[in-house]
Formats: sequence, structure tokens, C-alpha cells
Amino acid sequence: MALQKVGIERTLLWVEPGPAVLVSTFDGSKNNVMTITWTLALDFAQHFALCTGPWNHSFRALLEQRECVVAVPSADMAETVVRIGDVSGLETDKFARFGLTALPAETVRAPLIGGCLADIECRVVDYVEDYGLVILHAERVWEEDAPADARMIHALGDGRFVADGAQMDLRRLMEDKLPPGL
Amino acid sequence: MALQKVGIERTLLWVEPGPAVLVSTFDGSKNNVMTITWTLALDFAQHFALCTGPWNHSFRALLEQRECVVAVPSADMAETVVRIGDVSGLETDKFARFGLTALPAETVRAPLIGGCLADIECRVVDYVEDYGLVILHAERVWEEDAPADARMIHALGDGRFVADGAQMDLRRLMEDKLPPGL
Repeated sequence: MALQKVGIERTLLWVEPGPAVLVSTFDGSKNNVMTITWTLALDFAQHFALCTGPWNHSFRALLEQRECVVAVPSADMAETVVRIGDVSGLETDKFARFGLTALPAETVRAPLIGGCLADIECRVVDYVEDYGLVILHAERVWEEDAPADARMIHALGDGRFVADGAQMDLRRLMEDKLPPGL
Repeated sequence: MALQKVGIERTLLWVEPGPAVLVSTFDGSKNNVMTITWTLALDFAQHFALCTGPWNHSFRALLEQRECVVAVPSADMAETVVRIGDVSGLETDKFARFGLTALPAETVRAPLIGGCLADIECRVVDYVEDYGLVILHAERVWEEDAPADARMIHALGDGRFVADGAQMDLRRLMEDKLPPGL
């Protein structure tokens, strides 16, 4: 089980389905991680958005350092994902508390999170304050080559989560509209 | 099988998981519908966003009429969802072509789409042109009371879709963070 670098165009595969994600930051002295369930694909050029705000301790590091790693957890991490979202990095080293493995990224100082399905190294390219939108550009994508559980999870908004189920291949119906490389 | 009005706070249950949706519009003379897989929850006050642009024929009606219905299709509608996204309303009456049932909404002139899991009547409250973000406010929510298939679908971005699978109830871990009414 290990993270492998993959083509940057694969960013969309992890963003478009709308999974719950973990966002790691490095504030210049320590790592932090937050749970975000509000994400949005913006284009086919690796831009996407998170909706967050100053109530998250990570928010300051995100805007000051202008970088992060967006990691996509698997369904077997669901409880940890919720627990990460329920404590603040202000008083807790969340990597230690939740047994997360911080691995060095290549283009940012925020850490990759070992054991996730994918890790996306990102630059913060804009902040749309009216809506709390942090606009990201993916710089590098890593994927776990042999995940024990390959299912993403999606938050329902009321404390329930749903894991990925059956997959349907409808490529034949939209060949003219598929993004380059996918 | 019928649409029932439900509490407006239930908007989040249909937006936060990131499903592929259908967006209906009425341009003053006819109905249209488009497929959108890029959506984002913005707050607990029924605001959410779609990412789209002028390449969609519906876009003009959306901005001019400043209203729409966001309908959440079930997994058994997946092929239709893709086909709707592959033709333009400019030359096609998509409601007729795809056998969709247009039902009257209460707060907007755009139609509800019968047979979907949920239908959200929306006002367009802003447009963030830099990112093609149409900011919506939900005015009324309808849910199908006895769907044959209750699974939402999520686009993977490459022509594959994934249906909802196992559900996990983690409310006990986040009771202090649940939105009012959910």
C-alpha cells in the first residue's frame, strides 16, 4: 500500500463526486487537518473550491500559507473523519491524536495524509469572501495503489454519511464531452 | 408515488452529498432542463451554488428569470441524466424527448420534475462571474414519498457514475454541530 503520483487531470475524479475530504495545512511551525464536506469542481484545468471560514482554525494557515493538501478518505475512515471535524487544531495535534501519517508533499509544505485514497497538493489562488470560497489549483495528485476500502464517503448534512455503491459506466453516452486524458 | 412538501432545512440533505442534479428553467415561453454535476452547499440558510456558464442554453434563462428548480434524480435515471446533458435545449424540447413530467412549482415558474427524489424551488441571488457560480437560495423543497430507487448518483468526471451505497449514521459523534431541524 503506497501513494503513487498520477496525472494531474485525475484531480477531477476526486473532486467532482463531492466526497467528504480532509484538508491538511502547515502554518510555518506545525501541521493541522480539518474535515470539509463542501467542495466544488470549477473547471477542467484543476481548479476547485472549498467552502469554509474563520471558524476553522486551519483557515488562517490556509490563507496565509496559500497552500494545502486535500485528501480523500475511504469509508473505513468515516468515524475518524467526523472526529477530526469535531475538535480544533488550536488545542490538539490532530495528526497525533488520530494516528494520521503525515508524509512529505512535493510542491507544498502541508503534508500528504497516508492511508487516504488520494492526496491533492494545492495552491490557494483566490478567496471569494462573500461566500467563504477558497479557490484551489491542484499541483500534484497522488493515489493509493491498493486501498483496503476504495469507497469514498459523502456527507448527508445531518450526521449521516453514505459510502459509494454500485458504479455505472456511461462513457459511451458522452464521449464527445469527456475531459482530456480521462 | 408523489411529491410532498417538506421543511426547507432539508435542502442540505440533497445538496451536501454532491449528487448529479437536473436544473429546470422556464424562459418565459418554454421549459428546459440541464444536467449539472458541479454543485456546492454554502451555508445552513439554504444557499448553495451551481457551476455553469453560457455554453449551456439554460444559462440565459437562469440569469434572466433568476429562478430554477434543482431536481435530484435517482440512480435508475442515470442514463437519462447523461442524455439530457448531451443535447441542447436550443433545438430540443427535452421534457418531451426524455419523457419528463413537468409539474407546477409554487414559488417559481420553472417546473418541478416528476419522478425525481427531490425538487428544490430556487431563486438566483447572485452570479460570481469569475468562477461561473450561480448562487441559489432554496424557497421550497419537495420530496418523493415512495421512490422505487432512493439512491442518488455522483459523477466521477470521466463518464462513470457511482450510486449511493451503505449508509452510516454518525450523528452521535457530532450532535453539537448538527444544523437546526436536521
